[in-house]
Amino acid sequence: VDGSILAGLLAAVRSHRPLVHHITNSVTINDCANITISAGAAPVMAEAPEEVAEMVSAAGALVLNIGTLSQGQVDAMLIAGRRANVLGIPVILDPVGAGATRFRTETAWRLLDSLDVAVLKGNAGEIGVLAGTGGSVRGVDSGGIAGDPVETVRECARATGTVVAMTGPVDVVAEDRRVFLVGNGNPMMDRLSGTGCMAASVTGAFAAIADDYAVSSAAALAAFGLAGERAAAGARGPYSFRTALFDELSVLTPGDLAEHARLEGPHGV
Amino acid sequence: VDGSILAGLLAAVRSHRPLVHHITNSVTINDCANITISAGAAPVMAEAPEEVAEMVSAAGALVLNIGTLSQGQVDAMLIAGRRANVLGIPVILDPVGAGATRFRTETAWRLLDSLDVAVLKGNAGEIGVLAGTGGSVRGVDSGGIAGDPVETVRECARATGTVVAMTGPVDVVAEDRRVFLVGNGNPMMDRLSGTGCMAASVTGAFAAIADDYAVSSAAALAAFGLAGERAAAGARGPYSFRTALFDELSVLTPGDLAEHARLEGPHGV
Amino acid sequence: VDGSILAGLLAAVRSHRPLVHHITNSVTINDCANITISAGAAPVMAEAPEEVAEMVSAAGALVLNIGTLSQGQVDAMLIAGRRANVLGIPVILDPVGAGATRFRTETAWRLLDSLDVAVLKGNAGEIGVLAGTGGSVRGVDSGGIAGDPVETVRECARATGTVVAMTGPVDVVAEDRRVFLVGNGNPMMDRLSGTGCMAASVTGAFAAIADDYAVSSAAALAAFGLAGERAAAGARGPYSFRTALFDELSVLTPGDLAEHARLEGPHGV
Repeated sequence: VDGSILAGLLAAVRSHRPLVHHITNSVTINDCANITISAGAAPVMAEAPEEVAEMVSAAGALVLNIGTLSQGQVDAMLIAGRRANVLGIPVILDPVGAGATRFRTETAWRLLDSLDVAVLKGNAGEIGVLAGTGGSVRGVDSGGIAGDPVETVRECARATGTVVAMTGPVDVVAEDRRVFLVGNGNPMMDRLSGTGCMAASVTGAFAAIADDYAVSSAAALAAFGLAGERAAAGARGPYSFRTALFDELSVLTPGDLAEHARLEGPHGV
Repeated sequence: VDGSILAGLLAAVRSHRPLVHHITNSVTINDCANITISAGAAPVMAEAPEEVAEMVSAAGALVLNIGTLSQGQVDAMLIAGRRANVLGIPVILDPVGAGATRFRTETAWRLLDSLDVAVLKGNAGEIGVLAGTGGSVRGVDSGGIAGDPVETVRECARATGTVVAMTGPVDVVAEDRRVFLVGNGNPMMDRLSGTGCMAASVTGAFAAIADDYAVSSAAALAAFGLAGERAAAGARGPYSFRTALFDELSVLTPGDLAEHARLEGPHGV
Repeated sequence: VDGSILAGLLAAVRSHRPLVHHITNSVTINDCANITISAGAAPVMAEAPEEVAEMVSAAGALVLNIGTLSQGQVDAMLIAGRRANVLGIPVILDPVGAGATRFRTETAWRLLDSLDVAVLKGNAGEIGVLAGTGGSVRGVDSGGIAGDPVETVRECARATGTVVAMTGPVDVVAEDRRVFLVGNGNPMMDRLSGTGCMAASVTGAFAAIADDYAVSSAAALAAFGLAGERAAAGARGPYSFRTALFDELSVLTPGDLAEHARLEGPHGV
């Protein structure tokens, strides 16, 4: 993907400052709000059934994250998601912990079946479970997948009809035909709770200003991963890494992204 | 306002260490707890209907924040607020997102109509909406107001019968007659989620030890803004700014506040 | 306690990476997740009644924290706790604010009476209240105890039938006969919201790989306190302290713990 396309996407996030409506988990909700701001967008967290349809109407993207799900929260996700679909607002689903309990796996499928999800962003275990090709999840952490990563993601894209972004040492973004590989990132990201959730928020910020959700998701993961590389350089541990991660994303320029994104694809066209 | 009055208020927060009971949002709840401690007070977050009346009875102030409101949470706010009013404990209301959805605007008015609110702390859009003079809010961010800031705040004070604190490049604090302008602060505060919520927590800590809620609110905003100025000086981005913001407020001395507060007023007496 | 035992416990947390299931408060939930990772374990926060029994089945420990309790959350705690007891998974209870309201004190006793709690971790006021020997709590902060700390903890251990860990300038860990004193820590820990909650998470990580919950709790508090000492050395205020606290715990080696733990006991055998 031409670097100028990636740069253009980040510049558009910064200039449009889209509203990204989150219905998300209570563990990483603050970092999700702040990473959305660092990316250049504006977060709002609202999950009362009385207001989610009205709130999402002003948004550029809706991020649904089942990290600390409850029945009431899922009902609000469905109200907001249906409204977003009517208005053509992209819905990003983070199926946190799908595979760890039946409730999470079933809820992920309920949302996928009920809504037109633009991007499904998950770790390897979650994506393997939803692809039906085998994946294990303990708590909210991936225990890995049985098959080949790219085939797993493509299978999941076919099974769900969405763009699928699978985060890992190399992120894989695929829809039925096209596949992108994103090499940016750092192992320190695994030692901070919620980097997966944050990746979904950044993915939402980029989807809000894009039409091609495969390219925008790959660009988002490249930008987030690049900030992670730069943050890890001087970090002593997880919280100095976190401080640097948010600072680095906030000062990342479109030029930085064009020059340092390690993004291959589209393969398999 | 004489610097020694401001210094006295901060010294009283530090010596009395008042309990500030929050019923607040799930996005910035941790920063609200910690900024209360940095100011010198003690936070408690409790919203079960079974205990809010008992908990607020031990508090010096009650901070109500509708950032991620739910019907159940608002009911708890009303129980706690009514108890606080009976005991003469100041109630601070942060109408987060009033103007963005009908549910938020109506809830803000429901709380204002049902409770004796001591201080209404909001951004320009929220205050313009509640003043009825025109304001726009997207998500939880102000889109600005139609009229003159000082007149908007005075109109809102008349409409609500409270002290109104409108945060912005220059914070405006007003009740029906008196107006205070607070020049402390830094644009970096807009790049961190929840600085408005934190301002309400510090406002609660100062109200807890004061009688004149207009002066105490102006002093609180000056102290918080001064910490923001100092924090911004060495910050590379939003999270290094946040770290410094909390550290700077915790080491701010009454003498610092007396010397460096940029607080004008009371005007319009 | 021989330093090599402490070192062995920390090494086991790092090698086994146990899953620590939390049903906890919304104020410090993010720090509890991240301190669990810094200790070397894996956190999961799940409180939907539909999934807590299944989720805890994969866990090494269950941490219950009533910091922002609700009736629904307590019901989920009971479901998860009973399942954990059947499977022999240690339950850690943090009775946050017991003594501040009747709802919290009664809920702490309801959980203690309904579940086999392995470790009760609280501040002095909470433990004094639950021991029945006198303790005061304002909000979630200890107002101190009437009696001798060691006797209070032993009395609480007898009254509750659990290992009791009382945090303070010197932490006291006791069961009916054995008593351990832990001297590690720093006053800065009192200026950050949730260090008590975090201590319970680390206690859970250590209990997950141990059989002797008195020794594992003492080792956990020594490790957490040692990280606090090291973090305080260069901290300017509460948030630079927090960043260093998480970093220091993540780089703490078993050798560090063996050499610098200030742990006395078992006394009173």
